[in-house]
Amino acid sequence: MKKITPILLLIGLAALSAGCAQQEVLQVKDIGSKHVGGRAFVIEGMAEKEITFSPGSPPMKLNPNGEFAVEQMYLQYVRLAAPKAKYPMLLMHGGGLTGVTWETKPDGQAGWQAYFLRAGHDVMVSDAVERGRASWARSPEVFKGEPVFRTKKEGWELFRFGPAGSWNANPSQSKSYPDTQFPVAHFEQFMKQGVPRWLTTDVAVQKAYNTLAQSECPCVIVTHSQGGNFAFNMALAYPEKIKAVVALEPSGFPDPDKNDLSRLRGIPHLFVWGDHIADHALWSRIRSGPEKYRNALVKVGVKAETLDLPARGMKGNSHMLMMDRNSDEIAALVQQWLSANGLMK
Amino acid sequence: MKKITPILLLIGLAALSAGCAQQEVLQVKDIGSKHVGGRAFVIEGMAEKEITFSPGSPPMKLNPNGEFAVEQMYLQYVRLAAPKAKYPMLLMHGGGLTGVTWETKPDGQAGWQAYFLRAGHDVMVSDAVERGRASWARSPEVFKGEPVFRTKKEGWELFRFGPAGSWNANPSQSKSYPDTQFPVAHFEQFMKQGVPRWLTTDVAVQKAYNTLAQSECPCVIVTHSQGGNFAFNMALAYPEKIKAVVALEPSGFPDPDKNDLSRLRGIPHLFVWGDHIADHALWSRIRSGPEKYRNALVKVGVKAETLDLPARGMKGNSHMLMMDRNSDEIAALVQQWLSANGLMK
Repeated sequence: MKKITPILLLIGLAALSAGCAQQEVLQVKDIGSKHVGGRAFVIEGMAEKEITFSPGSPPMKLNPNGEFAVEQMYLQYVRLAAPKAKYPMLLMHGGGLTGVTWETKPDGQAGWQAYFLRAGHDVMVSDAVERGRASWARSPEVFKGEPVFRTKKEGWELFRFGPAGSWNANPSQSKSYPDTQFPVAHFEQFMKQGVPRWLTTDVAVQKAYNTLAQSECPCVIVTHSQGGNFAFNMALAYPEKIKAVVALEPSGFPDPDKNDLSRLRGIPHLFVWGDHIADHALWSRIRSGPEKYRNALVKVGVKAETLDLPARGMKGNSHMLMMDRNSDEIAALVQQWLSANGLMK
Repeated sequence: MKKITPILLLIGLAALSAGCAQQEVLQVKDIGSKHVGGRAFVIEGMAEKEITFSPGSPPMKLNPNGEFAVEQMYLQYVRLAAPKAKYPMLLMHGGGLTGVTWETKPDGQAGWQAYFLRAGHDVMVSDAVERGRASWARSPEVFKGEPVFRTKKEGWELFRFGPAGSWNANPSQSKSYPDTQFPVAHFEQFMKQGVPRWLTTDVAVQKAYNTLAQSECPCVIVTHSQGGNFAFNMALAYPEKIKAVVALEPSGFPDPDKNDLSRLRGIPHLFVWGDHIADHALWSRIRSGPEKYRNALVKVGVKAETLDLPARGMKGNSHMLMMDRNSDEIAALVQQWLSANGLMK
């Protein structure tokens, strides 16, 4: 018995700890949202129409001309009674997606919003201009060009759930990477999270994010894909407001030759990459850009590190790292890194 | 001293109680979201395009043809550790708006989501099909007709912040009703919450809400404006799932002659109306429809009551009751009604 007891005790503690993690009650002080930024836009010269809003309600004349609120963005917040982090965390989604990226996982597990709340961060989740609850504006009058809608095939291949040509309209016939960490049985649920996007709105998106940096930060940013470039630029514009940038597979980056990167000294950056990038033509090319940016950061004395998951022995991660089956292990690594960089109290 | 002490004590208790109401910490078990309903839609025969997703990222070919997820809806939830209500509460927004309606008020005060969480309800907030985080689909291929965008003038007049012709492009020149309860100084902030809408999607919206009733209820519904008709129909479709309907200024209603309203016996309904309806031509007409529906409910033995705020001495409420300065007093009346109808533990 003497030899077995400590082991049983350890197993017992582990079980207890896992149970507690699920059951732990969040002490929430405030929950709410706000819209940030935006501008007025006037439409003139369009014809009046007669419309009916709801069945049973009487018809009314609608004049489409007038002044509109456009290019604002949305921010949802949950504030803890006793945060353990020094600054709130801002979670920024990628292209064709919204803040839902952080709220849930396609298999129904709790998202990183809940993870980082439990880790002691006040958490803000944004919807960028024209995405989700930020709303979108008349096109092409306000947003130039046309909206782009993501097909299931594109979602499957671009997010690296399986190799090119492996998506099938019959979900059970799609062939994922054998080692994929993405919960592919719930791929259809994931695709419901997608929203249309314009390819012409980066200036407006950046402007709203910069407004947000001024009014809602200091903060720590965790950003994904298209959100990477916006976050890097927020830090360059307001270095005193951004305390760290964790970029999950950023797809864009500021030009190192056109920006004074030395402004970022004291703002640690972490670049996180999943698996199957080398065997994906587009992702191999995409990755080289942010890598160049990271090297330029290091060169001027910014602490800019890489967390290469496969190099660390974590295989099969997709572009949607925060939804993969091992996503909470990745969140734990991010949390350790924030802690190691002095961002917890 | 003997006479003053009890008064001081009362003042002290009142101050303490007000302080506690602000400070009260929510005990939250779960926070997250999900998408519900929807279907697959295939686009064929459109031309391929070359696009660049983010500055610095390489161009790629985009084939717009393929299979898309369309007509799903979004549901965000906060579950308490120890809810005092018997059933979760579902908050359903009105036309041209999203669940943000319930999350915040334009003056920055906490919204009804937070109010009803503090009152002990698990709270679910929805974005209907094509609104906010539910996403929208290609039009006219999926959504027929064109999207409608709300002007500031329409928002000001339709939501009864001031009489016809009282909106001005210079915010300080807009002339509200003198007794308005809407925080008109923050009107511009309110307009940022708006989203475009189609007038052809009611069938898809209802279908998704009915799916939600099956998978996420039993629940109590608090619904606003366009959401009224969807909620009434959810109750008719799944009377065992809907435990009460509180309809704030519903703009539509099911045809009493084409539905078996006796199915709703045992489901209390409350119709809430603000001020300045009689002097607003469109709202006078709109109101008569749901009133007729309420009378038909009463006739078959459904408990269907009216909360007419001006008749009760509460003057100046706008169509956005849940954002008015006295909105928490209205929420308290709703809470009392739910309690009186046996919906709290």
